[in-house]
Amino acid sequence: MIQIDELGTLESIIALTNTLNVGLVYDALVEYTIEKCRKMYLSLTTFNPIICECNDSYLNNIQNRVVKKEHVFKAIENAVEDFQEGDVGAGKGMSCHHLKGGIGSASRIVSLNGNDYTVGVLVLSNHGTLKDLTILGKNIGKDLAKQIEAKETRDKGSIISIIATDIPLTSRQLKRVIKRASVGLARLGSYIGHGSGELMIGFSTANIIKEKETEDIVNIQAVNEEKLDDVFRAVAECEEEAILNSMITANRVVGYKGCTRESLKDFIYHYYFN
Amino acid sequence: MIQIDELGTLESIIALTNTLNVGLVYDALVEYTIEKCRKMYLSLTTFNPIICECNDSYLNNIQNRVVKKEHVFKAIENAVEDFQEGDVGAGKGMSCHHLKGGIGSASRIVSLNGNDYTVGVLVLSNHGTLKDLTILGKNIGKDLAKQIEAKETRDKGSIISIIATDIPLTSRQLKRVIKRASVGLARLGSYIGHGSGELMIGFSTANIIKEKETEDIVNIQAVNEEKLDDVFRAVAECEEEAILNSMITANRVVGYKGCTRESLKDFIYHYYFN
Amino acid sequence: MIQIDELGTLESIIALTNTLNVGLVYDALVEYTIEKCRKMYLSLTTFNPIICECNDSYLNNIQNRVVKKEHVFKAIENAVEDFQEGDVGAGKGMSCHHLKGGIGSASRIVSLNGNDYTVGVLVLSNHGTLKDLTILGKNIGKDLAKQIEAKETRDKGSIISIIATDIPLTSRQLKRVIKRASVGLARLGSYIGHGSGELMIGFSTANIIKEKETEDIVNIQAVNEEKLDDVFRAVAECEEEAILNSMITANRVVGYKGCTRESLKDFIYHYYFN
Amino acid sequence: MIQIDELGTLESIIALTNTLNVGLVYDALVEYTIEKCRKMYLSLTTFNPIICECNDSYLNNIQNRVVKKEHVFKAIENAVEDFQEGDVGAGKGMSCHHLKGGIGSASRIVSLNGNDYTVGVLVLSNHGTLKDLTILGKNIGKDLAKQIEAKETRDKGSIISIIATDIPLTSRQLKRVIKRASVGLARLGSYIGHGSGELMIGFSTANIIKEKETEDIVNIQAVNEEKLDDVFRAVAECEEEAILNSMITANRVVGYKGCTRESLKDFIYHYYFN
Repeated sequence: MIQIDELGTLESIIALTNTLNVGLVYDALVEYTIEKCRKMYLSLTTFNPIICECNDSYLNNIQNRVVKKEHVFKAIENAVEDFQEGDVGAGKGMSCHHLKGGIGSASRIVSLNGNDYTVGVLVLSNHGTLKDLTILGKNIGKDLAKQIEAKETRDKGSIISIIATDIPLTSRQLKRVIKRASVGLARLGSYIGHGSGELMIGFSTANIIKEKETEDIVNIQAVNEEKLDDVFRAVAECEEEAILNSMITANRVVGYKGCTRESLKDFIYHYYFN
Repeated sequence: MIQIDELGTLESIIALTNTLNVGLVYDALVEYTIEKCRKMYLSLTTFNPIICECNDSYLNNIQNRVVKKEHVFKAIENAVEDFQEGDVGAGKGMSCHHLKGGIGSASRIVSLNGNDYTVGVLVLSNHGTLKDLTILGKNIGKDLAKQIEAKETRDKGSIISIIATDIPLTSRQLKRVIKRASVGLARLGSYIGHGSGELMIGFSTANIIKEKETEDIVNIQAVNEEKLDDVFRAVAECEEEAILNSMITANRVVGYKGCTRESLKDFIYHYYFN
Repeated sequence: MIQIDELGTLESIIALTNTLNVGLVYDALVEYTIEKCRKMYLSLTTFNPIICECNDSYLNNIQNRVVKKEHVFKAIENAVEDFQEGDVGAGKGMSCHHLKGGIGSASRIVSLNGNDYTVGVLVLSNHGTLKDLTILGKNIGKDLAKQIEAKETRDKGSIISIIATDIPLTSRQLKRVIKRASVGLARLGSYIGHGSGELMIGFSTANIIKEKETEDIVNIQAVNEEKLDDVFRAVAECEEEAILNSMITANRVVGYKGCTRESLKDFIYHYYFN
Repeated sequence: MIQIDELGTLESIIALTNTLNVGLVYDALVEYTIEKCRKMYLSLTTFNPIICECNDSYLNNIQNRVVKKEHVFKAIENAVEDFQEGDVGAGKGMSCHHLKGGIGSASRIVSLNGNDYTVGVLVLSNHGTLKDLTILGKNIGKDLAKQIEAKETRDKGSIISIIATDIPLTSRQLKRVIKRASVGLARLGSYIGHGSGELMIGFSTANIIKEKETEDIVNIQAVNEEKLDDVFRAVAECEEEAILNSMITANRVVGYKGCTRESLKDFIYHYYFN
């Protein structure tokens, strides 16, 4: 992470997993990349993969560390554009606002110079307390808390947000854009608790850095600073929608020692569609 | 600001004014402090006052720079605990969500070890667009925008938030607490626009640094990290309430060249009390 | 400062003065700019000048605040490329390693794509202790401390370093470049004391942001990351040389209450040219 | 790393290894800690070990990833106070200023309130170019470069510095202390090249955070800010000495494909002890 911040380039797949599986997933990504390079008769001498984690020990017997290298390899090979959300992959054991959380995504189109650009957000949601849950300004969590027995009351979770765009952005602009994801988080009632990590990674695919650049001065593109508002708004909206999607697509999960997380989809109709 | 961050101490009154009056107010605070020291037969050799500014050039002919040193001196002498909010002082010319903004404040009690501690927030609000204004999750700004002609459409403003508490906090804890003010901001619909500064200053009055400390190791107090959640929640709520207060207490103002900012208080009943 | 970091643009002259004159110099720059705009039939509605300060209260009766607006106006009008160094301007009362410090500058040529680019550093030096002073690895300060009675023993000073270049740099690159100025500082024996501020500002003149950019996507230039080493080295060397120049060009000054700072130029020959 | 910065506590052993072994070492530390907890009938639900890496692919066929879990377990079990330096452990393949680098350490005593406190630094050195190497201000690297054929000319390395102390420090103070390590680095001629990471971790053992603190307000100790200078100086000196030690204790190593790093100890006498 420190290196990305300093060098401004992203050289790896971003992998999501739980807290105690980071090492194994890291090692698997290194092995995968060495193998891939070998097939191209290349020697890999440096590689810093990005592994992000949330703690799913409420639903998952996390000590068992069931993720194996083969799962990582398969996940990479099966990567598709149209993927499942909710209680899948790293999202299987995650909790959001004491309900079932996990993987969620959303995107927006931003028009610049007459062309369409995309801003997309993918989250691994594992944060928040039930009583704080607020959707469209309605604090339904307070009411839900009377029906659902949520054993934990403090926000010990975290959320990983990955912001991707094809809008040309400098590192400074990208940092400003990423920060606006917290707006979406706040609108759903989170006040970003202690213990709770709010990790945001962002990248733009617009300016590609050549591996062996021969020019001393390179041309890059950046969005007109005055147009950043549209990008800010897009990210804030994407983050809010992605978190909601992670909850609304997730199924109820009964986990380790019978610990259970209800699904928002079993309750939301009552509050918003009557 | 850089010095506060580095040294962790606050040595000055915090003054709020508009963009082009910063120099004069700074100079007035220095003069005031030199004079005060002189009366105590002290010689002032260093002093770094804190002056925060927002740009009120929509309502105010800002080039005239009407604030004089005497206004600064009078403001210091007239400082009271129970002060006016809204379109007063630095708040006179400020706009918030294209309505009238200005000075607002709010506080919460946090109980620790059975004692009551206070978290207070004072804002100078000058940010946001009308169409984004959202109160209790109801996006009334969109509707208001049909009735009120707001000439500016982009968020070029900023907001100053001053967070004060008597809870013992280390610098690291204080920074975490301050950051949560953005939650309150987001809940009112702001996505923190470009050009928009979101300046937050915080201080705790609990650990007083002696001017001439003779001990090499000093004892300080800090809140138990597990209790920070209550402080985070307090700050988020205070920020939201303080901004609302800055709008609801402000009167409609017709300013420079007839530019006008309506008051939220003339519209809010319709949306929430019917 | 916060605004520059956030918006990435510099809109003002950078002024240097002493701690208690910041307000007045700020106000003078605002007045000057309003006047200049008025002559062009423009109305100035926002302006954030950069005023940097060091504390010269050892040699100067700082409370008198002798700098007046006229001095500021004259300084702007008399700005030239080939300026005086040492005990001039804001440098008049500054101390460096308990000797006379002040204004110093240095530059280096960096060749990129066959073209010459310049890196320049200007310092206002007011930091360091005598016993730490080290030139070319020779800790002459320890020896000098036996001859010169330096009343202060702790490093309470600070140094302002302004790094300017015509090399195209992004904000991220610029920040990395600026940081390397501390290398030059360290090589002269400073360990950057407490109380001591080490303020560095940098700018590149290569990418000009149009005031009213009509394109949504703009083209900017950046140096090839692999070439940054040459820029880092240039800045480190410039900083070291600029500080030395600030000392070697400064005359011995007898100041307030007879406090005196000797000039390095009266001692250096003995150590390096015998 | 982000978590330490945010929460201010260190919960793990710090492990050093090469770039492509990070995942395995991380996983080994997790496994070790789970096992250790199991023996105490505890269940480990969260753990974030600290693994730092440098790239040793000049001397080491890094793709082979020869480090196995057993090496990690053994390293933990064999940890002692009086350890070897130089080309040992993670230091085996590292290069410093194009000579042999690796593990080095140094410490200083700081007296506070009449008691002795210790500041210690341990480095894994893998940075710098030969021609920049400067010891006691003598740029011997330039001369050495004529005798030693150093294949790489650019600084692509990095250095890990771990700063440990029993002086009570707040997080803010600790950050200020850590930063001064760069002074030691600069004095040996490094200008901290691009590609080069300068990673510094620091901790104080003085304020122990109880795992289950029952008090809402806790008492902690901090050093008097005025005394920080002594700590700054100690860290700067330790860093310089630790890097030198990592070089002077390391043996000449002939590595992968015959690549060789000479030892400083075979050359230094000529320059400093004649």
